[in-house]
Amino acid sequence: MEELIRFGEKFFDELEIAMYKSREAGVQIELNEVSTSALRERVVTVVRGIKDKRLGVAIVDTGDKEKVKEAVERAYKMAKLNKPDEKWVSFPEPGKYREPRKVDKELREVSPDYFVELAREGIGMASEEGIVVAGGGGGAEWGESLIMNSHGVNVFQEGGGAFFYIELVGMKEGKVTPGIFDFDAKLSLKLDVESVVKNALQKVKWAFKTEKSKTEEAKVVVEPWAVSSLLSYALFPAFSGERLVKGTTPLANKVGEKVSNDLLTIYDDPLHELSINPVIADDEGVPTRRNVIVEKGIFKGFIWDNYWAKIHGVESTGNGKRNLSTGGISIGFHNVVIENGKRSLEEIIGEIEHGYLVDGFQGAHSSNPDNGNFAVVANPAFLIENGEVKGATVFMMSGNVYELLPDLYAVSKEQKVLPFGGSMVVPAMAFENVRIAGK
Amino acid sequence: MEELIRFGEKFFDELEIAMYKSREAGVQIELNEVSTSALRERVVTVVRGIKDKRLGVAIVDTGDKEKVKEAVERAYKMAKLNKPDEKWVSFPEPGKYREPRKVDKELREVSPDYFVELAREGIGMASEEGIVVAGGGGGAEWGESLIMNSHGVNVFQEGGGAFFYIELVGMKEGKVTPGIFDFDAKLSLKLDVESVVKNALQKVKWAFKTEKSKTEEAKVVVEPWAVSSLLSYALFPAFSGERLVKGTTPLANKVGEKVSNDLLTIYDDPLHELSINPVIADDEGVPTRRNVIVEKGIFKGFIWDNYWAKIHGVESTGNGKRNLSTGGISIGFHNVVIENGKRSLEEIIGEIEHGYLVDGFQGAHSSNPDNGNFAVVANPAFLIENGEVKGATVFMMSGNVYELLPDLYAVSKEQKVLPFGGSMVVPAMAFENVRIAGK
Repeated sequence: MEELIRFGEKFFDELEIAMYKSREAGVQIELNEVSTSALRERVVTVVRGIKDKRLGVAIVDTGDKEKVKEAVERAYKMAKLNKPDEKWVSFPEPGKYREPRKVDKELREVSPDYFVELAREGIGMASEEGIVVAGGGGGAEWGESLIMNSHGVNVFQEGGGAFFYIELVGMKEGKVTPGIFDFDAKLSLKLDVESVVKNALQKVKWAFKTEKSKTEEAKVVVEPWAVSSLLSYALFPAFSGERLVKGTTPLANKVGEKVSNDLLTIYDDPLHELSINPVIADDEGVPTRRNVIVEKGIFKGFIWDNYWAKIHGVESTGNGKRNLSTGGISIGFHNVVIENGKRSLEEIIGEIEHGYLVDGFQGAHSSNPDNGNFAVVANPAFLIENGEVKGATVFMMSGNVYELLPDLYAVSKEQKVLPFGGSMVVPAMAFENVRIAGK
Repeated sequence: MEELIRFGEKFFDELEIAMYKSREAGVQIELNEVSTSALRERVVTVVRGIKDKRLGVAIVDTGDKEKVKEAVERAYKMAKLNKPDEKWVSFPEPGKYREPRKVDKELREVSPDYFVELAREGIGMASEEGIVVAGGGGGAEWGESLIMNSHGVNVFQEGGGAFFYIELVGMKEGKVTPGIFDFDAKLSLKLDVESVVKNALQKVKWAFKTEKSKTEEAKVVVEPWAVSSLLSYALFPAFSGERLVKGTTPLANKVGEKVSNDLLTIYDDPLHELSINPVIADDEGVPTRRNVIVEKGIFKGFIWDNYWAKIHGVESTGNGKRNLSTGGISIGFHNVVIENGKRSLEEIIGEIEHGYLVDGFQGAHSSNPDNGNFAVVANPAFLIENGEVKGATVFMMSGNVYELLPDLYAVSKEQKVLPFGGSMVVPAMAFENVRIAGK
């Protein structure tokens, strides 16, 4: 494959070739039935080359050498016609990688049939009166990637993970609950379908009883899935070095300053023990590492890919992630970890006289990362009275994430692994004096 | 390939095998540069089999016979574990197809390089002071499909189309216009880049001058792209036979009744002369035809796929469309045509003393097809005074599509071909007494 780099050097000052091969075996669940059994396979090669600071990018759905050579030539034709990017510095130099995690090769071979049975099992466990399995799915993903560039970067990685999720809706005595999700994701096939179904069933039972929420200031406990959706849109983008360069992050002059209280620690580490995205190199071949972003409430710094880091005169933090539609690289996380606390979620709820538990936020995607403003609907959400969940409710929460974070008063011991945007390891987070608008 | 049907009949009472091969060669445009040159290729095979009314669906990203046989076996394992669908009747019987359109084989071979040059040409033409080419793209798609079932359906189709679009933003003297789109789509490579750029430039120039809109009842001329987005969400879903069976269309007892005035005629016909989706069979192998849905304001009837038609005791209208993520079929259009009128858009605008021209609607996707309610923001939109476009404006329009349609007073002679959801052929539509909320 290095022959392809040699071939490309005839045209370009420098170039990068990235190959991705993926396999996904899995099933989908719809209305109590397994609706599709799928085996999807894909090979994508991306060529990025620079000639006189002019960029050319070509994508081709194959790993075939001759076809990749044609893609190199197309990238070159494109580069010649584009204008120079005067900000361009260079592709990354080789770096030192950490020891990769052991991979479970079963994930590469597993048949979708395995998940047909898993799904039937899950549907069976959820088959109680008044419960509909509205949706769900399960599967295993296997990926292989090879990132090479003309400065000597040459890194091959392989690995995979498995996931299972279910959406239940309760229908009883004319009542219909909101859709309740639960899921599991692991680096092996040892998925805990039983816990997934049990958790979802518990929440549906809570949801059958509806309670009014008030307009008030109250304690709000946010579960991992809801934490991740709110912070992914309102906070995490502000950590991007590109936004620092462009002046679109409110954290520009805040390195070393408090953004929360000391209960909050956030870092990105693909090799964290719970990570289901254990990459040793990013999509530009830069070694990944443990990047601490917030430590005990103090903002520690930004994350970078190669392009923006070099423009800003710093080092890439190994956070270059590729978009396989455009071939381009942008700054992203591999496995965001929000550090856990000491108390269990049960204890945290048990200590609340009056408050709310939030399982999901709607509308989080319209948050504004430029300033941290958000306006979301908490649904599914639950009323807590005297340390116990009383029933389902819905309320609005609008505010600013930088005003919310200092009101964090507890973080749960349990962390959930979320198979999104790489992966995330997230505990439940409890806030006090949260202004909510009841329904 | 029929051998695969014979193989599947060992397992199933009846089965269907559908193979899709696609190639897309094209480029993307970002900030005055060609950002990606892509050659994407894909093969997908979907197997749907029925055993004792139990459905099994398997998808595999290949056309390889042995792997398709494995998919047949997986579909069978899944069917055995699912519960019977007592509503199931049968897959379609063979039908008589219309004469296919001549296809332009150039579309199958064209290199992305062709579109690199086309895009550079477009960017060049748009290079005026104060104009940024924010985005765009161009490409050619080629598709081949083979639909077979155990009742003897066996239909092969091939064909393709090309498209070019551009998004301009004006920036001058501290003013930034909204993004202005224009596009062209054809069954050949003869794309009219010049007109695309010229139209977009004209609108940017209008947009530099901003005008206030009032809260009032006024004439509103809606351009094709905006017409298609509003009707695709608020009206067209109501034509689906599935919604008739499920009781979620407001047109349930309205066949033969007026839904608009006689200026409105809507039909679906993939072989219409301007169609860029000239299929002779739908994704279940049922012959397509010209289905008249609204004729001179009178609602004529619903469109159907095989499953819902047989449940309702009618014939499929050849409107089964496949989702390549799930393998499933749902009811959809191939090429919706809204019949054109007699006057040119220029004449229609020229006769308006005071009114508005709408180029795009935001928020159309939240319309409710169950009752036709919509609430959209007209943006980009333009104020018309004394028959001339005066400048850009923004306003809200909320109402009900069944109350809006009778106020149609003119349809333009020109129709635009929209490359979405198959394709659409849409004129501009002018309404009077439209209640708008100004900004």
